Amino acid sequence: MQPHRIAELQEFYRRQLLDDVVPFWMAHGVDRQAGGFFTCLERDGQAFATDKAVWFVGRATWLYATLYRLVEPRPEWLELARHGYDFMIRHCFDDVGKMYFLVDRTGQPLRMRRYYFSEIFAALACAALAQVDDDPEIAQRARDLLATLDHVMHTPGVVEPKTNPDTRPMRSLSPAMCMLNVADALHDMEPEPRYDMMVSAAIDDVFRHFVRHDERLVLETVAPDGSFLDTLEGRTMNPGHAIETAWFILEVARRRRDTALIGRAVQIIDFSIERGWDHDDGGLFYFVDARNKPSPFIEHDMKLWWVHCEALYAALLAHHLTGEQRFADLFEKVHDYTFSHFPDREYGEWFGYLRRDGSPSTTLKGNLWKGPFHVPRALLLCWKLLDEMAA
Amino acid sequence: MQPHRIAELQEFYRRQLLDDVVPFWMAHGVDRQAGGFFTCLERDGQAFATDKAVWFVGRATWLYATLYRLVEPRPEWLELARHGYDFMIRHCFDDVGKMYFLVDRTGQPLRMRRYYFSEIFAALACAALAQVDDDPEIAQRARDLLATLDHVMHTPGVVEPKTNPDTRPMRSLSPAMCMLNVADALHDMEPEPRYDMMVSAAIDDVFRHFVRHDERLVLETVAPDGSFLDTLEGRTMNPGHAIETAWFILEVARRRRDTALIGRAVQIIDFSIERGWDHDDGGLFYFVDARNKPSPFIEHDMKLWWVHCEALYAALLAHHLTGEQRFADLFEKVHDYTFSHFPDREYGEWFGYLRRDGSPSTTLKGNLWKGPFHVPRALLLCWKLLDEMAA
Repeated sequence: MQPHRIAELQEFYRRQLLDDVVPFWMAHGVDRQAGGFFTCLERDGQAFATDKAVWFVGRATWLYATLYRLVEPRPEWLELARHGYDFMIRHCFDDVGKMYFLVDRTGQPLRMRRYYFSEIFAALACAALAQVDDDPEIAQRARDLLATLDHVMHTPGVVEPKTNPDTRPMRSLSPAMCMLNVADALHDMEPEPRYDMMVSAAIDDVFRHFVRHDERLVLETVAPDGSFLDTLEGRTMNPGHAIETAWFILEVARRRRDTALIGRAVQIIDFSIERGWDHDDGGLFYFVDARNKPSPFIEHDMKLWWVHCEALYAALLAHHLTGEQRFADLFEKVHDYTFSHFPDREYGEWFGYLRRDGSPSTTLKGNLWKGPFHVPRALLLCWKLLDEMAA
Repeated sequence: MQPHRIAELQEFYRRQLLDDVVPFWMAHGVDRQAGGFFTCLERDGQAFATDKAVWFVGRATWLYATLYRLVEPRPEWLELARHGYDFMIRHCFDDVGKMYFLVDRTGQPLRMRRYYFSEIFAALACAALAQVDDDPEIAQRARDLLATLDHVMHTPGVVEPKTNPDTRPMRSLSPAMCMLNVADALHDMEPEPRYDMMVSAAIDDVFRHFVRHDERLVLETVAPDGSFLDTLEGRTMNPGHAIETAWFILEVARRRRDTALIGRAVQIIDFSIERGWDHDDGGLFYFVDARNKPSPFIEHDMKLWWVHCEALYAALLAHHLTGEQRFADLFEKVHDYTFSHFPDREYGEWFGYLRRDGSPSTTLKGNLWKGPFHVPRALLLCWKLLDEMAA
């Protein structure tokens, strides 16, 4: 990438992050009265619901702690991270320590789910906050959450599977991806070898079971031995999810200076783009069938904000680590699509849900799934990587 | 409606049903080897998955039994209804008598859900089949399934609610709609007063809690006392669901010759069309927010086949029972949209999922939600009603 282009992009991503996206969430997405964060926001930032998805308590806490750590130590960011942490501790755990999926504005429990997504983002939040706040309870909570996740992800039956394992045993990409992400975050907090072992095991799981080099595809669900399941689940590809996994692995490879691992991780990006890019209308599909059969997902052909966030950073990081021009080209292609379709030029921040043709199907800025996470994370990571590329 | 138009439509609906839709499902949607039915069909009828949603075991059984009863006693229809019933009895109940949501091709259990949708359609199937097959076990099974549904729908806690009732107690339209539909089907099988009492209680529940005349809207979820909940669930309207409820009530009103009930039921259609019709692109939205706030559903602006099936028959029946021209106009509007967008002129049957602009987002003919039910039911009911209007 040319130095003048890097300089241009540095400025662009910094401004998108600090002049647009972060101010939007700081202005509209904080509940100063009852604690925690609002994420169900209309186009102009007005809240259309005040229920709080617990994973966003973690995600927003992670964001503000990380901005404080990686951008600059603005007191309001640390204060917001603590604001999220306090709400989490006070309201988001049930009697036996499992985290809720949804609480109401005041923190009363609304919904418990069998999954552990709330724990994943709480762990990431605590691991980030512990690096800027020396309260030992925070780091300990990060360790405890990792231990919980390690237990539930590796103990069959703790999370009751949706599909009867006697009839159709299956293995999913999600647990490996989660352990990779969370253990790496703990390693960032305190570089202990046991975290790195967990990371290695998760990466091994990804490549051994979910990446099929013969057919150039990355699967979400396989048989326990990694063989292909010719069923709806078994044929499902989620390019955004696979690409996110790829850059998690690339970050580990960068830290370890593991060139071979870099080479294997960028293949995940290749396979996902080959299958997932829409050659007619541009952008990445949400779900694709590995055998080109109909997708069972009603939203399969929509273009979602987070998928493109993941692709932006994965492409840039792949270019930086491999030096290959094709990843710079991919980055520019995703950048063009993303910034010509998702940002709301009138009220700031991004639309989240585009129809196949790129028109927004709703003007909301957030809901229980979209909030202050994928957009600012991608903008921050791209900006910081561009700084490194410029240096 | 002009007699020549009625005659034209009679012929049109009869041919759509008997020359297109039913033959498609008979040719591609029957598993002669393992029993039961295939519903995951590509555009040309090829199966892209062989798993069997249990509600379609009931729905297809209902269809073939009903064709035999209402169209003509073709032996193959009775044989297919028994084919479905046999698979249901052999494979679809667990050890304690609860029905699965999904089984594999051979009938091995894949997924149990806490809901009772499988039981609803099994009850409808048995009530229809019992009218053409004098095996007393079938009628008894219909009675038993109704008893199960009556118990679970009226006993809080049997179906664990998604949302914590201590924090936010709620009441949904679905149980009332289900009891109305199933009890009326049992009444059709054997006209006992106790079924009619269940029907009356369900209709009372619908009007007392879910229809708001002051604001001209029909809600899916309210507070236990029927008051408005200003939350995501509380503001959700599902026009297709409300319109289906309306024609269930109209059928009861027709049977009872209850003019006042007809007048109240057609208001549900009015309110749903006022809120649900897309004035820009035509067709009915899938979900609408009662306060015009953003819908939390990713598919909210899509146009679904079943919604339009319900609207076709509801409008025609409303016209027939009230004599009002505006319902004939509504029928023509829905008919125009439906038949210019959903049918597949090349391979027959209908596309199921259109984007807001009316273009199909997938070419599949069936999946675990679309199969031989809403389309043939609407075609059959419209045709038979047109026969009555012509007579």
